[in-house]
Amino acid sequence: MKVWGLRLGHRRGRDPRLTTHVALTARALGCDGVILSGERDEQVIDSIERIVENWGGLFEVKYEKDWRKVIKNWNGKIIHLTMYGLPIQDKIDEIRKFKEDLLIILGSEKVPGEVYQLADWNISVTNQPHSEVASLALFLDKLFKGKELKKKFENSKIKIIPQERGKKTISL
Amino acid sequence: MKVWGLRLGHRRGRDPRLTTHVALTARALGCDGVILSGERDEQVIDSIERIVENWGGLFEVKYEKDWRKVIKNWNGKIIHLTMYGLPIQDKIDEIRKFKEDLLIILGSEKVPGEVYQLADWNISVTNQPHSEVASLALFLDKLFKGKELKKKFENSKIKIIPQERGKKTISL
Repeated sequence: MKVWGLRLGHRRGRDPRLTTHVALTARALGCDGVILSGERDEQVIDSIERIVENWGGLFEVKYEKDWRKVIKNWNGKIIHLTMYGLPIQDKIDEIRKFKEDLLIILGSEKVPGEVYQLADWNISVTNQPHSEVASLALFLDKLFKGKELKKKFENSKIKIIPQERGKKTISL
Repeated sequence: MKVWGLRLGHRRGRDPRLTTHVALTARALGCDGVILSGERDEQVIDSIERIVENWGGLFEVKYEKDWRKVIKNWNGKIIHLTMYGLPIQDKIDEIRKFKEDLLIILGSEKVPGEVYQLADWNISVTNQPHSEVASLALFLDKLFKGKELKKKFENSKIKIIPQERGKKTISL
């Protein structure tokens, strides 16, 4: 089963850091890749690819201007994370049952109404306003039941050795 | 037991959206308040306070230029979320055992070395680079064992009625 993120409506001026956080969270917590939509932003793509190069694993990042095409061509199930959806704690077992690939749609400010129709599930991580980064993190942790926290990232150039205090990294 | 966040090193030009996401995630997932440090940013404070006013609950937001003072005066335990720390899954039971108030330190780009010494625990949510928003979300979810997802926010002016498709809100 592959799990990808689809980031909607990226704006070069406003969103680079949040989109980067979305993508790195997707990578760190077990996604196979992320598709960026909205304005093309080579700097964001480069910075994510640089992280993959240094920190390892097989995470892919792609750009597709037409997000409708991504959804239409997706061979699997589609989840839209939105504060208006049904509670994750009520639906995650149902979602996990399917062995198909998953596409997780992550909106930015204004999500077009049709996204709610095109998704197989509209899922909320609380019905409070907060952050697509937080929603994605909790969704992935519940999808993978915490196993993603132990994911290995092969072929990294750098690795952290967890410490009680201070920082320890090794170069490989 | 009170749980507060302490955001380090806010920069007005660069960080408003991420700091806002940190604060709203803290609020949505069960914190009692957040202290912002670094540059004072009334716009960020206002936007968080506006969310509290509309969406309810008792979440507080404060500014304190001198984060060392916050740490020094904190009456309880202190957790620093950092990719260099010990894995959350190994330490969360130990942290949860203490009934003291918790201060969760959330760094931005450069965290001063002494923070690693001042914290009772340096905790990582994976040892991969991702997002302080994601780390905070997973830390709170594991601290509260998922109960935070059902938190009630009293005295709100607006409320979402979760839907399978589309958006439904009520004004109170």
